[in-house]
Amino acid sequence: MGKHLVVQKFGGSSLANVERIQSVAQRVVSYKKRKRDLVVVVSALGDTTDELVALAHKINAEPPEREMDMLLSTGEQISVSLLAMAIHKLGFEAISFTGAQVGIITDTTHTRARIIRINTEKIREELRNGKIVIVAGFQGVTLNQDITTLGRGGSDLTAVALAKELSADECEIYTDVEGIFTTDPRIEPKARKIDAITYDEMLEMASLGAQVMQARSIEVAKKFNVPIHVRSSFNTVNGTMIVKEVKRMEDALVTGITINRNEAKITICNVPDQPGVAAKIFKELSEGGVNVDMIVQNVSHTRKTDISFTVSKAELAKTRKIARKVCREINAEDILENQGVARVSIVGVGMKTHPGVAARMFDALAKHRINIEMISTSDISISCIIKKRYAEAAVKALHEKFKLG
Amino acid sequence: MGKHLVVQKFGGSSLANVERIQSVAQRVVSYKKRKRDLVVVVSALGDTTDELVALAHKINAEPPEREMDMLLSTGEQISVSLLAMAIHKLGFEAISFTGAQVGIITDTTHTRARIIRINTEKIREELRNGKIVIVAGFQGVTLNQDITTLGRGGSDLTAVALAKELSADECEIYTDVEGIFTTDPRIEPKARKIDAITYDEMLEMASLGAQVMQARSIEVAKKFNVPIHVRSSFNTVNGTMIVKEVKRMEDALVTGITINRNEAKITICNVPDQPGVAAKIFKELSEGGVNVDMIVQNVSHTRKTDISFTVSKAELAKTRKIARKVCREINAEDILENQGVARVSIVGVGMKTHPGVAARMFDALAKHRINIEMISTSDISISCIIKKRYAEAAVKALHEKFKLG
Repeated sequence: MGKHLVVQKFGGSSLANVERIQSVAQRVVSYKKRKRDLVVVVSALGDTTDELVALAHKINAEPPEREMDMLLSTGEQISVSLLAMAIHKLGFEAISFTGAQVGIITDTTHTRARIIRINTEKIREELRNGKIVIVAGFQGVTLNQDITTLGRGGSDLTAVALAKELSADECEIYTDVEGIFTTDPRIEPKARKIDAITYDEMLEMASLGAQVMQARSIEVAKKFNVPIHVRSSFNTVNGTMIVKEVKRMEDALVTGITINRNEAKITICNVPDQPGVAAKIFKELSEGGVNVDMIVQNVSHTRKTDISFTVSKAELAKTRKIARKVCREINAEDILENQGVARVSIVGVGMKTHPGVAARMFDALAKHRINIEMISTSDISISCIIKKRYAEAAVKALHEKFKLG
Repeated sequence: MGKHLVVQKFGGSSLANVERIQSVAQRVVSYKKRKRDLVVVVSALGDTTDELVALAHKINAEPPEREMDMLLSTGEQISVSLLAMAIHKLGFEAISFTGAQVGIITDTTHTRARIIRINTEKIREELRNGKIVIVAGFQGVTLNQDITTLGRGGSDLTAVALAKELSADECEIYTDVEGIFTTDPRIEPKARKIDAITYDEMLEMASLGAQVMQARSIEVAKKFNVPIHVRSSFNTVNGTMIVKEVKRMEDALVTGITINRNEAKITICNVPDQPGVAAKIFKELSEGGVNVDMIVQNVSHTRKTDISFTVSKAELAKTRKIARKVCREINAEDILENQGVARVSIVGVGMKTHPGVAARMFDALAKHRINIEMISTSDISISCIIKKRYAEAAVKALHEKFKLG
């Protein structure tokens, strides 16, 4: 291309009403004036997707997924055309495309399709014509011309994938917050915006509850080393860079703290301690479509043990039903459930090389008399399940302990 | 195909809410149970198109037409997916398609594109698979994959064109009235549903104000001799057949009476009576985008004459501006405008062979002391401009006179 190419993605909250659409157009045009080539990816306006889902469910509680994609993809199509109109109003040339038109080819897994390839020729041609290219996020098309969607947050994936295919110089994700923060600023006012974070840390934070970016898009960015700039659509302040490696003298022990209050804890009590029992429990749950999060089973001193796990509250009813059935089959004694829990996690690549981080976390919680009910760790994160009413205190304690303020 | 194939088109009012969508699904399924092959064409839900137009105009008073088509086509895409979901809910297989997916290829005249051809292979394949095929009306796609729309009422055109290309046995247009009436039943309660009407009569009635079907779609039906059944989506009563020739012992003198109260009458007074003056007036109006309806110029006994014409009220401001300019250039004396008029027309193929119909019309109006301000005739219609306050009385008088009750 030669020219500096930027892929920008604007989420639904950045396009929630006419004024915001006009303000996004202003921002896009301000880049164009600086002689950038621009590809803009947009989500559906505001809560459009949720509204369409609700409408579909009024008609059919289990709508065919192909038809659901047909329906939901209209949301982004509305956004691209309106943004193109707003840019024209400012005197610049813009052209909008659906995922199908631009050639985002996916597999046939409706509602959560995977991108197979992107034909960028049409985009390149319009960029050569001097146009601002606007692409509907979240959607693609199968080789058979059926419309597909990429799953929630899929517009991020569209942006990252286009940035990769077009060898863009920058990929900017505009959102309603100023970037990635050390923790949720609504809980800890001392939370600090992180200037740069690694893909791995961001992936861990996304899977632990930080909702700024879709995890799959970060995976793709990591795979192809596409640097991402997460920033606010309401001001021009620099946000957070998500990159392969952060140039710091030393990796911070802890980069961020996440909190997730949407999980419930299930304990299957007095499970016979023999091979295959855990496998049976989690196989049944998996086949029932339940997404199990943390799993903890401790060593037992008798022939019985307890197995605890967490699931999203939305899946609790389904989980209960399956767990009761399995409980009978494996002769377990009882099932306990607890919705009054929260998961607090610390994330940081520095943990890999610094021992003692877990101990410091537990110490901070203990000092505030916060009891830990479950613990789970990964390479770069440590999570504790605690009582929900202590969640905010825990976040503040950890934020202080690891000097993130 | 072998099997009996029906193309059904449902308008926006038939799909205005969840209950109506479900009721359309019920009707479609009842046909399918009778072993019909079914292709269903749908418009956007309720007032969706108007709402999208209003939204676009908030952003850009003159939106690029390509982007307008991109926006408006989402309306029908929402309808097809929801109807497919509703049919699945009833246990039948349906598959929805956009105009682009189904291969409705148009020229590049955005917002009023003309169909070039239709690739029916995809539809035929899904019919062979036993599926109910649902097609988004009103839209097509250019050879360059840009989405186009066919103009207001374009879903009728989609249905008629598909019926032709698929050699359908029937083409049913479902609407919120029971068929074509001798006149507007809200004005004349004695108005009677017409069992059968010719293409020519229907075309005349459509252009004179009857709003049941889009005129272009009737032209296409006439060209390819596609019989159309206009009927209510709220009951199962037979509606009106629109056909080439109506098998009647004798053609009715008058088939229907139309009324149009959305026109304004303009008179350019004391125009020099010389060649080229009328041409200049109507050329300028045409170039200014004004759609002139009736034109009347009487013989003059001096060197000056008056030229009167009617335009839709929506175009009055534009017309006034152009007329004033022309008025100065041709040295005409003055411009009069009158918004208090109505156009009442009688339509019937019988007029061709029966003289004296006009006299009977004028007589009926005279008996009710209704003054006629302008007269214009075609092969199968006679229109009179009268004072708007007499419009309903005129319709009733004519309905009585021609024994349409």
